[in-house]
Amino acid sequence: MGKKKTYKIAVVGAMGMVGTEMIKTLMKRELPVSELRLLDIPENEGKQINLNGKVHRVVTAKKENFKGIDIALFSAGGDASKALAPEAVEMGAVVVDNSSAWRMDPDCPLVVPEVNPEQLDHHKGIIANPNCSTIQMVVALKPLQDYARIKRVIVSTYQAVSGSGQKAFEGLKQESREYLEKGKTEPAAYKYQIAFNCIPQIDIFQEGGYTKEEYKMVNETIKIMDNSIKVSATCVRVPVWYGHSESINIETEIKITSGKAMELLKSAPGIKLVDDVEQQLYPMPLFSNDEDLTMVGRIREDFTTANALNLWVVSNNIRKGAALNAVHIVETLIERNIV
Amino acid sequence: MGKKKTYKIAVVGAMGMVGTEMIKTLMKRELPVSELRLLDIPENEGKQINLNGKVHRVVTAKKENFKGIDIALFSAGGDASKALAPEAVEMGAVVVDNSSAWRMDPDCPLVVPEVNPEQLDHHKGIIANPNCSTIQMVVALKPLQDYARIKRVIVSTYQAVSGSGQKAFEGLKQESREYLEKGKTEPAAYKYQIAFNCIPQIDIFQEGGYTKEEYKMVNETIKIMDNSIKVSATCVRVPVWYGHSESINIETEIKITSGKAMELLKSAPGIKLVDDVEQQLYPMPLFSNDEDLTMVGRIREDFTTANALNLWVVSNNIRKGAALNAVHIVETLIERNIV
Repeated sequence: MGKKKTYKIAVVGAMGMVGTEMIKTLMKRELPVSELRLLDIPENEGKQINLNGKVHRVVTAKKENFKGIDIALFSAGGDASKALAPEAVEMGAVVVDNSSAWRMDPDCPLVVPEVNPEQLDHHKGIIANPNCSTIQMVVALKPLQDYARIKRVIVSTYQAVSGSGQKAFEGLKQESREYLEKGKTEPAAYKYQIAFNCIPQIDIFQEGGYTKEEYKMVNETIKIMDNSIKVSATCVRVPVWYGHSESINIETEIKITSGKAMELLKSAPGIKLVDDVEQQLYPMPLFSNDEDLTMVGRIREDFTTANALNLWVVSNNIRKGAALNAVHIVETLIERNIV
Repeated sequence: MGKKKTYKIAVVGAMGMVGTEMIKTLMKRELPVSELRLLDIPENEGKQINLNGKVHRVVTAKKENFKGIDIALFSAGGDASKALAPEAVEMGAVVVDNSSAWRMDPDCPLVVPEVNPEQLDHHKGIIANPNCSTIQMVVALKPLQDYARIKRVIVSTYQAVSGSGQKAFEGLKQESREYLEKGKTEPAAYKYQIAFNCIPQIDIFQEGGYTKEEYKMVNETIKIMDNSIKVSATCVRVPVWYGHSESINIETEIKITSGKAMELLKSAPGIKLVDDVEQQLYPMPLFSNDEDLTMVGRIREDFTTANALNLWVVSNNIRKGAALNAVHIVETLIERNIV
């Protein structure tokens, strides 16, 4: 046997919340990395990150710094990605991008490895990582879709502040502290105070009164799973650090009993079934901190129509919702020998 | 004109969270009260409550202490209500009960004055106040029901801790403080920590994997509005002090555009329309503290099926969700001259 193939991997946005998690995930999962190059904004050039006793120096994210890179993981926002990802591809890298910039581009596969790995086979350099709220939903729905064809999805989300990055995380901390001390506070993360509140707006408003986040769930689900699935979403920010929760109602072409749903979910990849009403066990965001799997519970037949189910799905939005799915994509590219 | 009729009113559970709010509401709304009698558990006998400069002495909630009372507002839990409400009726009082003890009893009207005041006309002594999560939903749905007949409701709730009483309120405070200080805490209010978490269980589990709270929304809605409305509910506790939020999807017999829905809701009793995406205005629990009205916003046509709408409904669970609705019932009894 020859020497195992290794890869030069870049992380763009290495100092951000998701970038940091990407680096941790690459190391924890022991990917065959021969070089790890950390890129970020010019202001962070020269900063040092210590990884397993080895010091890495951050370099500026610009075209020439992708030289020799096989795979570039991007988590630097849509604008940076729009500008830099094609340049990284020109320099010979395959890009796995966490922003929304390329997700709906017909030339870019939008991939959750548990759901549609085959879409990777025809990539043209840029592969898009779906939105966090979509990833956990399609992971949970995939085994049910395969068994019973999903016609309609009504989803209401309970999304953690870490989905908005480090600033929102610190903002919730600051607001909570001040509110507990003084009984009032000023918004530190969003337009409105998030501490002890629910904000039914994530991202900007678009047509029909829906937000961009809500349309992401609609359109990304179609692209990843099936054109015929109709999704109606209401996205809400809640005062939680990590872990998005989703209350999902699905209508299917054929009946799935709750017992059958449990059986299907139990053996599906990427899923942890947490559903035991006797023991009062169900998924909760507080317990998603160290969890790589998408947790599914509160499985109930919906008696208001013929073939419908209610589910409660929780996943760590920074891990499976972002960094881990991107690394899963890299692993799948390597497995399928297409990088 | 003769002298205006006045009433001797008792509040049972006067020292509790809802009881306190009932007393405040009776005084604020200037009901024609000739005597206000405060009843509570024997341990609180003799305690004094100062109201508008007048000292009221708490007496034990027992049969003989209802002597002379015209109307008794109960908020002392299901067991106390089961035992004491019939005795209060025997003593000549009309009971308005906030517990779940009498809600599904066919002899007891279950009333939200904006929705079904006519059910009061045939009361037999005990009138039930619906569950908080039901009240705000039926207030919001009533004008849409009248216009388009609702067939199916899918609702996911975001419920405040004050719904579980003072202990849960203090528990969230304690957990939040400790978590911010030490990065961990112990559950102080529920089986699981509620601070920075979402708990998808309210009340005990019953058949089909649904909770009692979820069945309340199903069954109370039918009793209040229309036997043919099918409700599927997922009830979730969130770390919010006051104000339940509800993400509601309805299917109707005829089409309601979002414009028509706004027009209907704007002029409906008990509702405050808060829906302006340009200004990023929508209902939020943080702003329900001083609000008596049920706030409705995020009104969107649901494009996944023919006649459907999404709504976001927020109401103060202690006010309209409990104390205020009970006092509204009293006012309606007085208006309709049936007390």
